[in-house]
Amino acid sequence: MEPKDGGLLIVLSGPSGVGKGTVCKALRSRMPELVYSVSATTRAPREGEREGTDYFFRTREEFLEMIRSDALLEYTEYVGNYYGTPRDFVERTLAEGKDIILEIDVAGARQVKEKFPRGVFVFLLPPSFEALKQRIAGRGTEPPEIIAHRLRKAAEEVARVRDYQYAVVNDDIEACCARIQAIITAEHCRSERVPPGYFREFERMTSAGPISER
Amino acid sequence: MEPKDGGLLIVLSGPSGVGKGTVCKALRSRMPELVYSVSATTRAPREGEREGTDYFFRTREEFLEMIRSDALLEYTEYVGNYYGTPRDFVERTLAEGKDIILEIDVAGARQVKEKFPRGVFVFLLPPSFEALKQRIAGRGTEPPEIIAHRLRKAAEEVARVRDYQYAVVNDDIEACCARIQAIITAEHCRSERVPPGYFREFERMTSAGPISER
Repeated sequence: MEPKDGGLLIVLSGPSGVGKGTVCKALRSRMPELVYSVSATTRAPREGEREGTDYFFRTREEFLEMIRSDALLEYTEYVGNYYGTPRDFVERTLAEGKDIILEIDVAGARQVKEKFPRGVFVFLLPPSFEALKQRIAGRGTEPPEIIAHRLRKAAEEVARVRDYQYAVVNDDIEACCARIQAIITAEHCRSERVPPGYFREFERMTSAGPISER
Repeated sequence: MEPKDGGLLIVLSGPSGVGKGTVCKALRSRMPELVYSVSATTRAPREGEREGTDYFFRTREEFLEMIRSDALLEYTEYVGNYYGTPRDFVERTLAEGKDIILEIDVAGARQVKEKFPRGVFVFLLPPSFEALKQRIAGRGTEPPEIIAHRLRKAAEEVARVRDYQYAVVNDDIEACCARIQAIITAEHCRSERVPPGYFREFERMTSAGPISER
């Protein structure tokens, strides 16, 4: 018997270029029971994109109302469109006892942490500075000053690692996924997650009151 | 690359009858790299027992001196002999970067937590009250009042679960070991364990000072 409990919100973040998307995709195929957070956006649906699966498509007015009513765990504006994480989708999933993963940049993760501190915050680290540099430089044929700017931004993002409970090195996709899976398993084993009902019979034997409230 | 760091002290405890010894043995065969804490004792060696492998055999005077000089993480007296956990064996193992496991009763774990709060404290729970009751009653042919006494003691021990970071249900030995292994992996991924040297190159790109000191 596994003690039953609500789901976990896992926030996967890290500097740009570290491979968050690739890790998240690999993790989802290894853990089909893991729910992926669906973002809301004001941009128009593209060919084949489905409401509620790829995005929640919202008008600008609807999105602004979500901001006002604190219905988003985080949001950002990018090339003229809004993107954000609807709080109710996350909370409904957790209430069903399912784990949900949110793959997000460092600025977004910071907003989530303010609104949802009981999330499990996992920071992806590159194997080394050199590896991240090669990844950022190897993306295209941008001029050196653009690359230097991106690298400086990534270094500033790496500096946020101390805000996260966990730091996982993305050296090898399998090893990296195995570590994140271990973190999820371990978080489910946290002692405060044992449901109060488990203790009922034990409490009848002792005189010290409810174990779950200690 | 896995960030290098010191070893972890894993303290495995739980009520008597829960199967700590069996789980610990299974875990050690699954994780041969895990070091097992060797106890010091004043009792005489039995046939085949080896100094430093089974126990550190000490005279009563030596043991009392270890107590006086705070050289033990915990100790107890049992049918006229002392038993305890030498601090230096634990600390040397950790300094070598190896994980060490200590299987111990609830009273002992409490002493260890006072002296070594940065340990990873794992509490083994029975699948249910009924399962523990059967285990305790099934041990022999003791009179009901002895069994009731043991059960009451076990219930008092279960009430200490909130002092532990983790609670693992011993329903199935394989599943139980897998959870403990996941906890050890996850604890190695804690962000504060990334070695300061990892950040050096990143720090050169930012102006905010050492990342490791944030």
